Amino acid sequence: MPVPNNRQVRLIHRPIGIPQAGDFEIVAAPLVEPGPGQMRVRNIFLSVEPAMRGWVSAVGNYSEPVPLGGVMRSLAAGRVDQSNHPDFPVGTLVTGMFGWQDYAVVDPGDIEHVVTDLDLPLSTFLGVLGLNGVTAHYGLLEVGRPRPGETVVVSTAAGAVGSCVGQIARIEGCRTIGITGGPDKVRQCLDVFGYDEAVDYKAADFASRLAQACGGGVDVYFDNTSGPISDEVMRHLRIGARVIICGTASVASWDPTPQGPRVERHLLVKRASMQGFVIFDHAHHYPVARRALAQWIRSGALRYVEDILEGVEQAPDAIAGLYRGENYGKRLIRIGT
Amino acid sequence: MPVPNNRQVRLIHRPIGIPQAGDFEIVAAPLVEPGPGQMRVRNIFLSVEPAMRGWVSAVGNYSEPVPLGGVMRSLAAGRVDQSNHPDFPVGTLVTGMFGWQDYAVVDPGDIEHVVTDLDLPLSTFLGVLGLNGVTAHYGLLEVGRPRPGETVVVSTAAGAVGSCVGQIARIEGCRTIGITGGPDKVRQCLDVFGYDEAVDYKAADFASRLAQACGGGVDVYFDNTSGPISDEVMRHLRIGARVIICGTASVASWDPTPQGPRVERHLLVKRASMQGFVIFDHAHHYPVARRALAQWIRSGALRYVEDILEGVEQAPDAIAGLYRGENYGKRLIRIGT
Repeated sequence: MPVPNNRQVRLIHRPIGIPQAGDFEIVAAPLVEPGPGQMRVRNIFLSVEPAMRGWVSAVGNYSEPVPLGGVMRSLAAGRVDQSNHPDFPVGTLVTGMFGWQDYAVVDPGDIEHVVTDLDLPLSTFLGVLGLNGVTAHYGLLEVGRPRPGETVVVSTAAGAVGSCVGQIARIEGCRTIGITGGPDKVRQCLDVFGYDEAVDYKAADFASRLAQACGGGVDVYFDNTSGPISDEVMRHLRIGARVIICGTASVASWDPTPQGPRVERHLLVKRASMQGFVIFDHAHHYPVARRALAQWIRSGALRYVEDILEGVEQAPDAIAGLYRGENYGKRLIRIGT
Repeated sequence: MPVPNNRQVRLIHRPIGIPQAGDFEIVAAPLVEPGPGQMRVRNIFLSVEPAMRGWVSAVGNYSEPVPLGGVMRSLAAGRVDQSNHPDFPVGTLVTGMFGWQDYAVVDPGDIEHVVTDLDLPLSTFLGVLGLNGVTAHYGLLEVGRPRPGETVVVSTAAGAVGSCVGQIARIEGCRTIGITGGPDKVRQCLDVFGYDEAVDYKAADFASRLAQACGGGVDVYFDNTSGPISDEVMRHLRIGARVIICGTASVASWDPTPQGPRVERHLLVKRASMQGFVIFDHAHHYPVARRALAQWIRSGALRYVEDILEGVEQAPDAIAGLYRGENYGKRLIRIGT
């Protein structure tokens, strides 16, 4: 029997800033058999997310950088196609850090989630029911602690995390303001994700439109961007405001640290806080969040949009495209069925 | 009977940045009698503190600016010398926002504290047992929540608030690093306030000395300065670090907002927080803090240094002198006995 190839997307240059298509190459590697206690997973969906910029960066971060020549680190969803472990029989649908490749040989500890909600699409377990949704749920509710009637501002409001944050805030009884790029995404924020207001950060009158939308002030700011977008939001903090630092997508490089308006005086005068979090620290919260999110999806309270690229050939440029703002909703690459 | 004069220090110019001597004038005003239910307080000590810069500033702040022509707002400690209120008989020692003047006519609600610990000097109720000490106690313990063995860094480490923060942190079992200006204050930090390390921010090798002192990283940073001093500390945050924003003394003007290195990436990668607080929000904590601080003073665990200027003529330049770093310990003006 001929051994099928395992196509892998490998990192070949250490990018400065946003990883570009040329920083990766696609290589056909031999297919490996799982060892004792291991499984082989056939990947069906690969995830693409802003945090990947950090995973390939040489500068200090919250995980070791992907080594040069290594398979690009990535969450993926797939099906066990060979198994030497009784808990994960062939056919089990799983997610985990399987990397940008057709097949991954994994240990039980590499499995992030066994998909049992078979009424919901597998792809959702990389997005609204995956780390994106869990991040939104934990960050907004546990870090931001919004109260009904408060005003919640979300940057990258139409993105995989942001769209979920905005909808959870609305479900919690908050007034929601989305910040996004371009009139189409503004429409999507209002029509699909139900924001009370949506503001286009690319528009010339962004600052005044945001000021108008914020009105009486901002109680919770869920920040995925940093940079000039956040600088404008900071001007509208209300007393006791909470700023949740979830991502820094608008800043191309942190080496050296870019300059911006100092935040200390805002924080002091407004008795406000800024708090960073990394979802990997809060694995105990995943099942709690997934259960709530799945119920909201089934009831129709929570909507999601996916941006699915077809074929592994799309992978090398997929992160750069995300930073160009091309995607509508959660970006995935479909490489199997 | 001739009516004695009430010397008042009035604000006559709205300062840009640090208030200077020329922004005030000393005027002899007529002495007013207390009305029904009121008392007259003869001020003995006037307080001088960095926050006064904010009290005279036209830009957004946490209190209404002192009006032009008005008596400079200030905490003071004095003795009731006329009383129309049975709860505050003549001779009662009190503190409150009595302003930079010889005499203040006050309502019961203007009294911040009735001094009953008569074994302790009256001046301490404007410093280590006043808002400075209470600020240190609340900010460090309630906002920063240090745990034994953690590393606590304090800016303006020899100042009225900072020196108290450093000592409370040491009492709580933390390793303490003070940042201060000049070799004399470094000595004071080590010899008087018991810091484990003290670093001179005016020294050419400040950054490397700080890095060395921080060693394994910073768990709690009690920040009174903002600016380049804080920028260096931020580079050494440990995972889970808490930055307490208590003051911004090193930044001369916040209008327009000055630029500095963005903090979002530090906060994200280190899962760290920055939290501003204003002690006036936490009046419930004053007696708790005062009791603990007074006990530590009596037991010798907590030391304090006062920088007492003699005579109301010293008042106009006293804030500027504070920002020039002239004072050793809590700055006060003695205007009575």
